[in-house]
Amino acid sequence: METAEDLGERKIIELILKQLEPMPNMPVPFGDDVSAIDIGRGKLIAVKTDMLVGKTDMPHQMSVQQAARKAVIMNISDLAAKGIKPAALLVSIGVPRGFKKRDIIQIGEGLNQGAREYGAYILGGDTSEASDLIISCAAFGVGEKRRLILRSGAKPGDFVAVTGFFGKTAAGLRLLLQNLKAPTALKRTLVDSVLNPQARLREGLALASTDALTASIDSSDGLAWSLHEILRASNVGFLIDRLPLAEEAEQIAKLHGLDPVELCLYGGEEYELVVTIKPEKWKKVCEQVHLIRIGRVTKEKSVIFKQGKKTLSIEARGWEHFKTSLSDTMTLTRRHGSK
Amino acid sequence: METAEDLGERKIIELILKQLEPMPNMPVPFGDDVSAIDIGRGKLIAVKTDMLVGKTDMPHQMSVQQAARKAVIMNISDLAAKGIKPAALLVSIGVPRGFKKRDIIQIGEGLNQGAREYGAYILGGDTSEASDLIISCAAFGVGEKRRLILRSGAKPGDFVAVTGFFGKTAAGLRLLLQNLKAPTALKRTLVDSVLNPQARLREGLALASTDALTASIDSSDGLAWSLHEILRASNVGFLIDRLPLAEEAEQIAKLHGLDPVELCLYGGEEYELVVTIKPEKWKKVCEQVHLIRIGRVTKEKSVIFKQGKKTLSIEARGWEHFKTSLSDTMTLTRRHGSK
Repeated sequence: METAEDLGERKIIELILKQLEPMPNMPVPFGDDVSAIDIGRGKLIAVKTDMLVGKTDMPHQMSVQQAARKAVIMNISDLAAKGIKPAALLVSIGVPRGFKKRDIIQIGEGLNQGAREYGAYILGGDTSEASDLIISCAAFGVGEKRRLILRSGAKPGDFVAVTGFFGKTAAGLRLLLQNLKAPTALKRTLVDSVLNPQARLREGLALASTDALTASIDSSDGLAWSLHEILRASNVGFLIDRLPLAEEAEQIAKLHGLDPVELCLYGGEEYELVVTIKPEKWKKVCEQVHLIRIGRVTKEKSVIFKQGKKTLSIEARGWEHFKTSLSDTMTLTRRHGSK
Repeated sequence: METAEDLGERKIIELILKQLEPMPNMPVPFGDDVSAIDIGRGKLIAVKTDMLVGKTDMPHQMSVQQAARKAVIMNISDLAAKGIKPAALLVSIGVPRGFKKRDIIQIGEGLNQGAREYGAYILGGDTSEASDLIISCAAFGVGEKRRLILRSGAKPGDFVAVTGFFGKTAAGLRLLLQNLKAPTALKRTLVDSVLNPQARLREGLALASTDALTASIDSSDGLAWSLHEILRASNVGFLIDRLPLAEEAEQIAKLHGLDPVELCLYGGEEYELVVTIKPEKWKKVCEQVHLIRIGRVTKEKSVIFKQGKKTLSIEARGWEHFKTSLSDTMTLTRRHGSK
């Protein structure tokens, strides 16, 4: 009998989804960044839930406050990708025996900090005893149905762009877990990207208001994975002509002989937005949001990086629970490529 | 430094709440059965999140399908207490390594079953690796602001009533955990109340439509605790003149020398509604919903049971995570009283 780790996160989700009777007229299909229900008058409630588990999602240098804040950011990032302003969050918390009072206070502080940074509030929640620290947030907001950008609208010829550079969290995680050396300022930036991630809410809301986007997703499972998700949902492919590698990731790659392409494409735990845009609207969008154009949508269902004579097939892999884990160096190597 | 088990669930929640900046004009205060945001035009979105943890919430005779269904029921019960029809649920699932494929399928089946029984749908969710089985649901629905019944509206002179009899789950849990003997039919009823709980959604919706209720709460932490919660929120007390003890609980108490008052008042994991009602509306309400009147709201802030010459102070205790646990027989004894 197969077990959770044989299956991996995505196959587990697929198995569970198969048992569910879908709600009629769902405004958002299963598997997009958020779920939603239609509340009439052209409005919908968008909801997202995601869980932070101490054992697998928290490098030991991350404080409980940072973990709680991150649990909020993870959820807000998905609403941001759909152009939905988060109104509020509820939180279910699992706390292990022996967990200290000051850490409990830090949970409250981190939750509040994450929510207030993005104009949202924590409304309530629940606490249980568990073997791990568990922080499960449900974030929700009200949006306009006609403004919602799914993963499924990308058309051949569209531009594909991202809201920032990639590779910092993958590099930062390596610094933390393998205790790699780096100049102080560089180390601070990279580690900070892991411990204090930012959601692209301002960008997501601005992008949704332009009417220029055809698809949108957040990059929490890595840039490569996000592109493949749009591929699957939109039935298109990508020709990438620029890898949006962060300068800091490039520096650390040179310093320690790491593969910069791995850091850029297959890292995950990054919260940039990956969007496809009608080419005729590109200029106008760029006046409102800083975007990095990385390529074009193609008819062929593959993701190819081509620069000069160099051609590379971008694989459908990235961060996946059970398959990749912070606590497992073996899989860490798999995750970030071999050294 | 105090730890989680020194503090207990309620003190932990209090500590976390203290760190939160409250949303202005919250239609529901912190600590009620659900949270809500105002969406204008007299409407609100009510949301509830609660987590089932395998280790502490699942007797070993409970199947994974039953646990997943129960995780849904727990959340729907809180919406029912506020008269809100659940539209949909999102689910965050934590799965331990080694968890079997057939059990993963059972999670999906149980979630769908629980939601569909009450007209709701599972919209989506997320899966993570965790040390325990974790099923964290967020249930939500749209309601009318003027119809919402909080815990805080009970007035001296109001009747207090419940939607069903108490003590079956406390008795059923004892049968399961201590392997007590009982006639087959009796055992089946009691065990079934633990493994296949029902939420009082039909009753909650009907009660909310009568405009007769002044306060409402579900009884998931036990009847005594629910009364004390209304006491705290409404600043009133109760004179109880009838203990709504289930016949089946009475039978098992006689059979094994258990204290029926303990079973009735301090059990928990029961999903009846406890409501206070304007006396002049009592008759009309009873035409619509089967209610058991158990006493009256008083000015004195205490909960007293009085029947003939017998007087008993009903204590503010019930099910509490960290303080009470399925896996800990010591605390089980504390929970259900001494044998």
